[in-house]
Amino acid sequence: DFLHALAEVTPAFGASTDDLERCRINGIVECGERHAHIYRRTMLLAEQVKVSKGSPLVTCLLEGPSGSGKSAMAATIGIESDFPYVKIISAESMIGLSESSKCARIVKVFEDAYKSPLSIIILDDIERLLEYVPIGPRFSNLISQTLLVLLKRIPPKGKNVLVIGTTSEVKFLRMIGIRDAFSVTYNVPTLGKEDCRKVLEQLNVFSDSDVDSAAEALNDMPIKKLYTVVEMAAQGEHGGEAEAIFTGKQKINISHFFDC
Amino acid sequence: DFLHALAEVTPAFGASTDDLERCRINGIVECGERHAHIYRRTMLLAEQVKVSKGSPLVTCLLEGPSGSGKSAMAATIGIESDFPYVKIISAESMIGLSESSKCARIVKVFEDAYKSPLSIIILDDIERLLEYVPIGPRFSNLISQTLLVLLKRIPPKGKNVLVIGTTSEVKFLRMIGIRDAFSVTYNVPTLGKEDCRKVLEQLNVFSDSDVDSAAEALNDMPIKKLYTVVEMAAQGEHGGEAEAIFTGKQKINISHFFDC
Amino acid sequence: DFLHALAEVTPAFGASTDDLERCRINGIVECGERHAHIYRRTMLLAEQVKVSKGSPLVTCLLEGPSGSGKSAMAATIGIESDFPYVKIISAESMIGLSESSKCARIVKVFEDAYKSPLSIIILDDIERLLEYVPIGPRFSNLISQTLLVLLKRIPPKGKNVLVIGTTSEVKFLRMIGIRDAFSVTYNVPTLGKEDCRKVLEQLNVFSDSDVDSAAEALNDMPIKKLYTVVEMAAQGEHGGEAEAIFTGKQKINISHFFDC
Amino acid sequence: DFLHALAEVTPAFGASTDDLERCRINGIVECGERHAHIYRRTMLLAEQVKVSKGSPLVTCLLEGPSGSGKSAMAATIGIESDFPYVKIISAESMIGLSESSKCARIVKVFEDAYKSPLSIIILDDIERLLEYVPIGPRFSNLISQTLLVLLKRIPPKGKNVLVIGTTSEVKFLRMIGIRDAFSVTYNVPTLGKEDCRKVLEQLNVFSDSDVDSAAEALNDMPIKKLYTVVEMAAQGEHGGEAEAIFTGKQKINISHFFDC
Amino acid sequence: DFLHALAEVTPAFGASTDDLERCRINGIVECGERHAHIYRRTMLLAEQVKVSKGSPLVTCLLEGPSGSGKSAMAATIGIESDFPYVKIISAESMIGLSESSKCARIVKVFEDAYKSPLSIIILDDIERLLEYVPIGPRFSNLISQTLLVLLKRIPPKGKNVLVIGTTSEVKFLRMIGIRDAFSVTYNVPTLGKEDCRKVLEQLNVFSDSDVDSAAEALNDMPIKKLYTVVEMAAQGEHGGEAEAIFTGKQKINISHFFDC
Amino acid sequence: DFLHALAEVTPAFGASTDDLERCRINGIVECGERHAHIYRRTMLLAEQVKVSKGSPLVTCLLEGPSGSGKSAMAATIGIESDFPYVKIISAESMIGLSESSKCARIVKVFEDAYKSPLSIIILDDIERLLEYVPIGPRFSNLISQTLLVLLKRIPPKGKNVLVIGTTSEVKFLRMIGIRDAFSVTYNVPTLGKEDCRKVLEQLNVFSDSDVDSAAEALNDMPIKKLYTVVEMAAQGEHGGEAEAIFTGKQKINISHFFDC
Ligand SMILES: Nc1ncnc2c1ncn2[C@@H]1O[C@H](COP(=O)(O)OP(=O)(O)OP(=O)(O)O)[C@@H](O)[C@H]1O
Ligand SMILES: Nc1ncnc2c1ncn2[C@@H]1O[C@H](COP(=O)(O)OP(=O)(O)OP(=O)(O)O)[C@@H](O)[C@H]1O
Ligand SMILES: Nc1ncnc2c1ncn2[C@@H]1O[C@H](COP(=O)(O)OP(=O)(O)OP(=O)(O)O)[C@@H](O)[C@H]1O
Ligand SMILES: Nc1ncnc2c1ncn2[C@@H]1O[C@H](COP(=O)(O)OP(=O)(O)OP(=O)(O)O)[C@@H](O)[C@H]1O
Ligand SMILES: Nc1ncnc2c1ncn2[C@@H]1O[C@H](COP(=O)(O)OP(=O)(O)OP(=O)(O)O)[C@@H](O)[C@H]1O
Ligand SMILES: Nc1ncnc2c1ncn2[C@@H]1O[C@H](COP(=O)(O)OP(=O)(O)OP(=O)(O)O)[C@@H](O)[C@H]1O
Ligand SMILES: [Mg+2]
Ligand SMILES: [Mg+2]
Ligand SMILES: [Mg+2]
Ligand SMILES: [Mg+2]
Ligand SMILES: [Mg+2]
Ligand SMILES: [Mg+2]
Repeated sequence: DFLHALAEVTPAFGASTDDLERCRINGIVECGERHAHIYRRTMLLAEQVKVSKGSPLVTCLLEGPSGSGKSAMAATIGIESDFPYVKIISAESMIGLSESSKCARIVKVFEDAYKSPLSIIILDDIERLLEYVPIGPRFSNLISQTLLVLLKRIPPKGKNVLVIGTTSEVKFLRMIGIRDAFSVTYNVPTLGKEDCRKVLEQLNVFSDSDVDSAAEALNDMPIKKLYTVVEMAAQGEHGGEAEAIFTGKQKINISHFFDC
Repeated sequence: DFLHALAEVTPAFGASTDDLERCRINGIVECGERHAHIYRRTMLLAEQVKVSKGSPLVTCLLEGPSGSGKSAMAATIGIESDFPYVKIISAESMIGLSESSKCARIVKVFEDAYKSPLSIIILDDIERLLEYVPIGPRFSNLISQTLLVLLKRIPPKGKNVLVIGTTSEVKFLRMIGIRDAFSVTYNVPTLGKEDCRKVLEQLNVFSDSDVDSAAEALNDMPIKKLYTVVEMAAQGEHGGEAEAIFTGKQKINISHFFDC
Repeated sequence: DFLHALAEVTPAFGASTDDLERCRINGIVECGERHAHIYRRTMLLAEQVKVSKGSPLVTCLLEGPSGSGKSAMAATIGIESDFPYVKIISAESMIGLSESSKCARIVKVFEDAYKSPLSIIILDDIERLLEYVPIGPRFSNLISQTLLVLLKRIPPKGKNVLVIGTTSEVKFLRMIGIRDAFSVTYNVPTLGKEDCRKVLEQLNVFSDSDVDSAAEALNDMPIKKLYTVVEMAAQGEHGGEAEAIFTGKQKINISHFFDC
Repeated sequence: DFLHALAEVTPAFGASTDDLERCRINGIVECGERHAHIYRRTMLLAEQVKVSKGSPLVTCLLEGPSGSGKSAMAATIGIESDFPYVKIISAESMIGLSESSKCARIVKVFEDAYKSPLSIIILDDIERLLEYVPIGPRFSNLISQTLLVLLKRIPPKGKNVLVIGTTSEVKFLRMIGIRDAFSVTYNVPTLGKEDCRKVLEQLNVFSDSDVDSAAEALNDMPIKKLYTVVEMAAQGEHGGEAEAIFTGKQKINISHFFDC
Repeated sequence: DFLHALAEVTPAFGASTDDLERCRINGIVECGERHAHIYRRTMLLAEQVKVSKGSPLVTCLLEGPSGSGKSAMAATIGIESDFPYVKIISAESMIGLSESSKCARIVKVFEDAYKSPLSIIILDDIERLLEYVPIGPRFSNLISQTLLVLLKRIPPKGKNVLVIGTTSEVKFLRMIGIRDAFSVTYNVPTLGKEDCRKVLEQLNVFSDSDVDSAAEALNDMPIKKLYTVVEMAAQGEHGGEAEAIFTGKQKINISHFFDC
Repeated sequence: DFLHALAEVTPAFGASTDDLERCRINGIVECGERHAHIYRRTMLLAEQVKVSKGSPLVTCLLEGPSGSGKSAMAATIGIESDFPYVKIISAESMIGLSESSKCARIVKVFEDAYKSPLSIIILDDIERLLEYVPIGPRFSNLISQTLLVLLKRIPPKGKNVLVIGTTSEVKFLRMIGIRDAFSVTYNVPTLGKEDCRKVLEQLNVFSDSDVDSAAEALNDMPIKKLYTVVEMAAQGEHGGEAEAIFTGKQKINISHFFDC
C-alpha cells in the first residue's frame, strides 16, 4: 500500500528522483484512510494510462488546504509508478523567469513526455505556476491558457501521459476553468483527531499519557503544520532539548507544547 | 447519414485529415436525433456553399457544453464534405505564440482558402483561440477583432467558404458580438438517458441487465465524459480488468461503476 | 432615384469602384420609403459639398441595426456622386495591423483627399475601425482621437470633402463623442412587413400565394439577413433545389422556409 | 470692439496668422452681449500682461458648448493683441503623434514664447490635446501633468505670457485640476433667440417675414451649428439653390428650413 | 522673525538661491499669526538638525489649499537657514521626463545632500512630483515608493538633513502613506478677513475707506489668489491704470474690484 | 536577555554588521515584557535552525504598527545569533531598481545563504520590498511571487536558514498569502503607559516629578515616535537647549513638551 511504496525503487532515466524526494522531506507516515484511498485511486489511474488504448491522456487534480500532503502524495505516486518519464514542474525552479519562459519550460516538459511511451507530469502548486495573487485577482493568463490547452491535447499515437496537479486554491482554478479541465479531482484533507493521534504515535515524541491531549489540540491540522509544531515544541522552553527528544531519550513537555 | 460518413474517404490535397481525425479519437457512434439533425443541417450548408452564387461565405457556430461532441462533429463534416481545402484552426498548434502571431496564422488560413474554389475552415474552441478567461473577463481583443472581420469579409469572386466554429462559452461569444457574426448557430446537447442507453449498447461493455441502470446514472452527460467514466470503470476496483472488458470477454462490474 | 443610380457609371481615377461594388454583393433592390429618403438626403449633401464655399467639410453618419444596408447605401452614393476621389476605409483591409498603422492609413486617405477638389471618404463600420468590443468596453483610443480630429479638421482652401460613416453601434459612438462630431445622422432601419413583401416580389422566389405569409414571417428583418434566409430556404429540405429556384423554374417550399 | 477687430492687421514674425484665420472660417459676426463682454475682458488680460511687472503669466480658459465660438474668439484675440509671438497649439497638427512627442511640442511652444517679451499661447480644445474620451475616462496623464506644470511655471524675467485655453469639457478639466490651474474662466454660451435673430439678419438669407420664426426655431443653438443648418437649408429641397441664396438673389424656403 | 528673514543673505555654494527666489515672486508680506507660527516652528526643526546627534533626518510637511503660501514659506526657510546645501526638487525642472529619470534626479539630490554636513531638501508640490491626477486616481508608484524610502533612510554618520515637503493634496498623500512618513505636518491656511486687511494695507492700493470692504470680499482667500485679484482690479475697467496704481498715484476703484 | 545581547560581538564574515547597526540608531533600551518575550522566542527559533535536522527552513514574521521596533529587534537577533551569514534585504539599497532587478537581488541573497551552513535573512519592511501602495492596491506581483516561493523552498542538504520578516501592513500580507507562508508570526506592540515610563526613566531627560505625566501623554506610542517627540521637546521653545538636556545638565520643560 501507500507506505509500503516507500521501500520501492527509483524510476529509470528521465525521472528526477531527487526533485521528487525533496517533496517528502519528512518522509511518509500513515495518516488516515482518506489519504490512503486517494493514493490507491491515483495509482489506478497510472495503471489505466499504462494499459488503455482509448485514453492516452489522463489528468488528475489533488486539491486541499495548504500543507495537507498533496505534493508529497503526488511525488510518491511518481516514484511508485515505475514510469520511464516522471517530471515535476514547480515554481521553485522558475523563480524570476518571465511568463513566456515559464510557458516554454512547461511546454518542453510535455513535449519530452510525448517521446516516452509512459509519462507522469506533476504540475505542483498550480496557483504558484500561474503567479496567482487573490488581490485583483491577478495571474498569468499566458500560462493559464497554456495549461488549458495542454490538459486537453491528445499525445501522439502510442504515447500515454498521466498529469497530476496539486493546488490549495481550487476555487480559483474552478473560476478560470482549469479544475474542470482535469478529468478527476480528489480533496486531500487535514488530519482529524484520530489521524493526528496515529501520526504522533509513529513519531514517538510524547509520553503515552500525553498523546491523547496533544492529538486533541492538533485536531484538524494539516500534516505539514503538525511537523512544524512538534519541532518547535521539541526545543523545550529554553532550547537545547531537541536532540534528546528526537533520539527518543526524552519526551516533549506537554505544557510547553500547548504554548506553541 | 452521420455514422455512415465515417466510411467515406479523405479530402484531396490541402485538407489536413490527420488533424481532423485526432478530433474523433473515440470514433463516431450514433448518439441521438439532435446530433443527427445538426449534422444534416450543417451538411446542407456545405452544399449551399457549393452551388450558390449569391452566398460565397456561410458561417455556422456549433455551441454546447464541454465534451458534447462539437469538435468531432465539425471534423466529420470537414471530412465528409469532400471539399478540396479543409483546415482546422485550434489553440493546440499555437501554444505560447504571441497574440499577433496567432492572428497572422489565422489570417493565413483564410487567405489560403481564398485560393481554393471550395473551402471549409474550422475555428475550434473559439474561446481558447481568444485566450478567454472568465475572470475579468480577459481575452485577446486583437484576435476577436480579427475574427469579427474575417467572419464578414466576402471571399474573392468564384471562391466559396464555409466557416464552422465551435465553443462551449456561447454567452461570452454573444457578449463580444462573435455569436451574431455567424449566420447560423446550433446547440449541441449532452446526452439524455435514452441516448446514453443507445451509446452504451454500441460500446457493449455492460451486461444487458446493467445497461439500464448505468444509462440512468449517466443521464445528461456529454459524450466525451461518458467515455472517460466507462474507461475508469473498466479498470475494475483493483486494476487489470480493462483488457478483458474491451475485448468483450468480461463486463464492467456495475457497483464499481457507480463509485466512479 | 436610388435604384436608378445603379445604371450609372464609374467615378474617374482615384475612386476604388471595386471596393465599393463589393459592398453591394446582392445588388440594390427597392426596399421602402425610408431607405429612399436617406439616399436622397445624402445625395443632397454631396451636392452641397460640390457647390458651397462656406462648408468645405460635410460629415454624415448612417447608423442602424446590423445588416440594414448602411454600407451598400454609402457605397452607392460614392458611386453615384461622380466625385473624382471616392475611398472606403474599412477594417477588412487593415486586419492585424497595429493601432498606429491603422491610424496612419486613415490619415493618408484624408490627406490624399485634400489633393482632390471633391472627395468622398467612407468610414465603414466605425466600431470595427475602433476595434470596439462591448466588454470593458475596449476600443482604440488612438484611432478614436484621430477620427475626432479628422471629422473637425477643415480641408485646405478649394478642397471639399464629404465623409460618410456607417455603424451599428451608435450608442457607443455617442458615448465617446464621435456621433456628435458628425454634422448629420440618419437611422437606416430594418424592413417592415410591407417592405419585405416588396423585396420578395422583386426576388421572385415565392409563389404568389406564399409571398404574404413569408413577408409576415420576415417582418422587422434587416435586408441582409433576408437574403441569407431566402438562400438557405432555396436549398430545399434535402439540398439540390437552389439552381431551379434562382433560375425561376421552381418556387421555395414555404413550409421548409419556416424551418429556417 | 470685437467685430471691429477683424479690420486690423497681422501680428509680426512668429505669429501664425494662417492657423489663426482657419479658426474663423465663417468670419466674425456680432452675436450678442455675452460674447462681446468676454472678448473685452480677455483683451484686458492681454493688456495686463503687457504692462504688469508682478504677473508675468496670466492664464484664461474659454469654456462652453461645442461650436459656441471659443476657438474663433481665442484666434481673434491672438490676432488683435498685436503681440510679437502668437501660437496656437491644437490636436490637428499632432494627429497620430505619441504622447511624449505631443508633450515635447507643447513644451517647445512655451519655450519659444519665453524668448519673446510678449506672447500669446492658445491651447485649443484642451480635451483633445489630452486625448480625452469619457469612457473610463481615459486621457493622457503625461500631457495633463505637463499642462498643469506649464500653467503654473513663471516665465523668465522680462518675458510675459498670456495663455488662452478652450474646451467644451470643463467638468472633466475641473476633475483633473486643470480648470483651477487657470487664473480666470469665462463661459462662452449658445445663442439665445434674440442673438440668433441678429445673426440671421447679418447673414441676410431669409425674407424679413421669416427671420423671426427661423430665429425662434434656432433658439439656444451654438453659432457654428447655426451656420451648418443655414447652409443645408440653402441647398433647397432638390438642390441647386445655394448659389442664388448666398448671392442674395433668392431667400431660403422657410418650410424646407424646418425640415433640416 | 519671518519677514525680517528677507533681509538676510544668500546661502553658500550648492544652494540654488535663484530657484528659491522664484518661489517668492511677490515677495513676503506679513500675513497673520498662523503663518508666522509655522515659520518659527520649521526654523526650530532646522536648528534641531544642526545641533542634534540622535536625529540626523528630520522631515516636515507643509500642506494647505492651493496658493496659501507653502512654497514661498519653504523657500524662505531654505534661504534663512544658512545651510551649505539647499535644494528644491520641483516638477517644473522635470517636465516630460520619464518616471525613472525623475526618480534618478530625486535620488541624486538626496545623495548630494549626504555629502554635506547640513542640508535642506524641498520637495515642492509633492502631488505634482507624483504625477497625481484624482481620476483613477493615477500617480507614479515608482516615485511614491522612492519618496517613502528616502523619507525614512538615515543619512550617513555626521550628515544631517531637513526635508520640507509641500502639497495641496494632503488627503491623497495620507492615503498612500506619504503624509505619515513625515515626522511633522503643518497646515498653511487661507487668509481670514483680518489677515487680508493687513496684507492690503501693506500693498497700499486701496483708499483707506475701501480697505475694509475689500478685505471683507476677500475673506478666506489664499495669499496668491489675493495678488491675482488685486492685479486684475488694478488695470481698471478700460485698462491702462495699473502703472498709476502700483506707483501709488491712484487707488483701485472699489466697484471695479468687486467685478473681478 | 534582549538588552544584554547588545554587549555581544560581531558575526563572522558575510554578515553585514553595519547595515544591522543602522537599524538601531537609538540603541536598545528595555521597553516592556512583550518586546522581551518576542525576542526570546525568536532567539529560540534561531537555535532550532542550528540544531534541527528536520526543519532546515524556519520563517518568522514580526508585524506591528509603524515604529514599534520591528527592524531594530530583527537586527538585534541577527547580531546576537552569531550565525556566519546574516543579511538584511531592504528597499533602501534597491531604490529605483526595476522589479526584476530587485527580484534578482533577493534571490541572490537566498542563494548565497544556501552556501553557508547557518544563515539569517531579514526581509525588512516587506510591504516596501513589494512596492505596496494601498490605492488600488498596487504592488509588485513579480516580487510577491518570488517571496512566496522562497519562503517555501527547502535549502540544500546541510544548509539551514532562518528568515525574519518585518512589516507594518500585516493585513495586506495576509491578503496576498505571504503572512501564511511564514511558519510563525509575532505582533510587536506600541508602548503602554507603564512601558513609556520605564523608557523615559532610562533616557533621563525629565525631572522625576514630570516623568509620570509625560508617560501618560505618550501612552500607546511606538518606541521610535517616542524618540522623535522627546528630541523635539529637548530643543526648548526657542531652540538651543538640546545640548544641555542630553548631557543631563537640564531637564525638558514639561509644558513645552505638551506642545509638541
Ligand atoms: N502520508 C503522508 N502524505 C503526505 N505527506 C506526508 C505523509 N506523511 C508524512 N508526510 C510529510 O508531510 C509533509 C506534507 O507536505 P506537502 O508539501 O506535501 O504538503 P502540501 O499539501 O503540498 O502543502 P502546500 O499546500 O504548502 O503545497 C511532507 O513533508 C511529507 O514528508
Ligand atoms: N456522434 C458523435 N458525435 C460527436 N462525438 C462523438 C460521437 N460519437 C463518438 N464521439 C466521440 O466523443 C468525443 C467528443 O468529444 P469532442 O472533443 O468532440 O467534444 P467537444 O464538444 O468538442 O468538447 P470540448 O468542449 O471539450 O471541446 C470524441 O472523442 C468523439 O470521438
Ligand atoms: N436598397 C438597398 N439598400 C441597401 N442594401 C441593399 C439594398 N438592396 C439590396 N441590398 C443588399 O443588401 C445588403 C445590405 O448589406 P450591408 O452590408 O450594406 O448592410 P450593413 O447595414 O452595412 O450591415 P453591417 O451592419 O453588418 O455592416 C447588401 O448585400 C446589398 O447588396
Ligand atoms: N462673434 C463670433 N464669435 C465666434 N465665432 C463666430 C462669431 N461670428 C461668427 N463666428 C463663426 O462661428 C464659428 C465658431 O466656431 P468655433 O470653431 O470657434 O467654435 P468652438 O466653440 O471652438 O467649437 P468647438 O467646441 O467645436 O471647438 C466659426 O466658424 C466662426 O467663423
Ligand atoms: N508671508 C507670506 N507667505 C507666503 N507667501 C507670501 C507671503 N507674502 C507674500 N507671499 C507671496 O504669496 C505667494 C504664495 O504663493 P506660493 O506659490 O508660495 O503658494 P503655494 O501654497 O505654494 O501654492 P500652490 O498650492 O499653488 O503650490 C508668493 O508669490 C509669495 O511671494
Ligand atoms: N527595545 C527596543 N526594541 C526596538 N527598538 C528599540 C528598542 N529600544 C530602543 N529602540 C530604538 O527604537 C527605534 C525602533 O525603530 P524601528 O525602525 O526598529 O521601528 P520599526 O517598527 O521597524 O518601524 P517601521 O515600521 O517604520 O519600519 C530604533 O531607533 C531603536 O534604536
Ligand atoms: Mg505542495
Ligand atoms: Mg472541442
Ligand atoms: Mg456595413
Ligand atoms: Mg474649438
Ligand atoms: Mg507651491
Ligand atoms: Mg522597520
